[in-house]
Amino acid sequence: MLQLYFSPMACSLASRIALMETGLDAHYHLVHLRTKKVGDDDSDFRGISSKGAVPVLVLENGERLTESAAVLQYIADLKPELGLAPRFGDPDRYRLQEWLSFTGAEIHKAFLFPTFWYKDDASLAKPRARITQTLSVPSAHLADREFLVGNRFTVADAHLAWALLLLRPAGVDIAQWPPLSAYLDRVQGRPAVREAIATEMELRKTLTASPA
Amino acid sequence: MLQLYFSPMACSLASRIALMETGLDAHYHLVHLRTKKVGDDDSDFRGISSKGAVPVLVLENGERLTESAAVLQYIADLKPELGLAPRFGDPDRYRLQEWLSFTGAEIHKAFLFPTFWYKDDASLAKPRARITQTLSVPSAHLADREFLVGNRFTVADAHLAWALLLLRPAGVDIAQWPPLSAYLDRVQGRPAVREAIATEMELRKTLTASPA
Repeated sequence: MLQLYFSPMACSLASRIALMETGLDAHYHLVHLRTKKVGDDDSDFRGISSKGAVPVLVLENGERLTESAAVLQYIADLKPELGLAPRFGDPDRYRLQEWLSFTGAEIHKAFLFPTFWYKDDASLAKPRARITQTLSVPSAHLADREFLVGNRFTVADAHLAWALLLLRPAGVDIAQWPPLSAYLDRVQGRPAVREAIATEMELRKTLTASPA
Repeated sequence: MLQLYFSPMACSLASRIALMETGLDAHYHLVHLRTKKVGDDDSDFRGISSKGAVPVLVLENGERLTESAAVLQYIADLKPELGLAPRFGDPDRYRLQEWLSFTGAEIHKAFLFPTFWYKDDASLAKPRARITQTLSVPSAHLADREFLVGNRFTVADAHLAWALLLLRPAGVDIAQWPPLSAYLDRVQGRPAVREAIATEMELRKTLTASPA
């Protein structure tokens, strides 16, 4: 069975959404990111991944795959008939990779990550100054589209929807970008997305872990 | 003919290396990142890409592809027989995506980007504190490997080699990690890599543009 190491409402939420969309069984291991402990047995999470970051997907052969862009494509390709990623050979596959990179680098790593880990304002002035321009890119793209790639839900939407959900606790009101608000509502209308978020929000209430 | 919008020694260098490795003809358009002007005619680069970032690859059909992770995979797949990326269906393809994501998010966006764009020390304290742990990951991986994925040069190596080259002007001496120094020498031993770097270093001497 696949296993996912996750922290509630961290970027591993996108991988949980992808897994739930596939309907595949998986075992979910809670990770406390600040202490780098695995919830199951209080063991050192760096023994699972030296990066100390989620998601970590343990494959059926026991290998461990990290980085949302890779994990999400791997999960989508387990059930190609669902269209969670355009098939290899479809030019839209590169569009999927383009959005996975953009969300991971520009929204997560350049904005959400410093916001939740660097508590001093000095470290955050520049990321805060930049996020408006960053968000104008997906907002313009989604002004006349339902989803990021190929007019159907893909794992790139699971990834971006997670990032948009985290913008509110990061102090950014996405109501400034009506296409993004409407898009987030649309994605959250999917049963697997709703269930994944509800599960992690409930867990998060019982924990004091950081969300990014 | 393919066209690449680049800035000398910016992350678009990896895409130039990939193109030169394929032997495909391409037209290279210089972009001044600080002013967002295209060198050819002083036009607004945001008219080419609203992101205002390089690389932008103009495909044969006129579409524009952005984000190194997507552009590098696209270029590699133009000449699958060269092995610049494991073929779709090969499990190593996900390892390639894992390294592209790691280099783009953890080294480029979390460290190099703030180093070259945010000039105040306060904004940089946290990224600087984190880079040692970050670099220990590829260093450990490369301690007993020649290249990142599948024991041959791939576009993930073009990407990481670019990032390692930029660490010196960013104030990080990679001699602290002998596997990384040896790896960078090995990658720079490739004629296409040497030529790509020489071309951009020469251009850079004549310009005052920022490197990341």
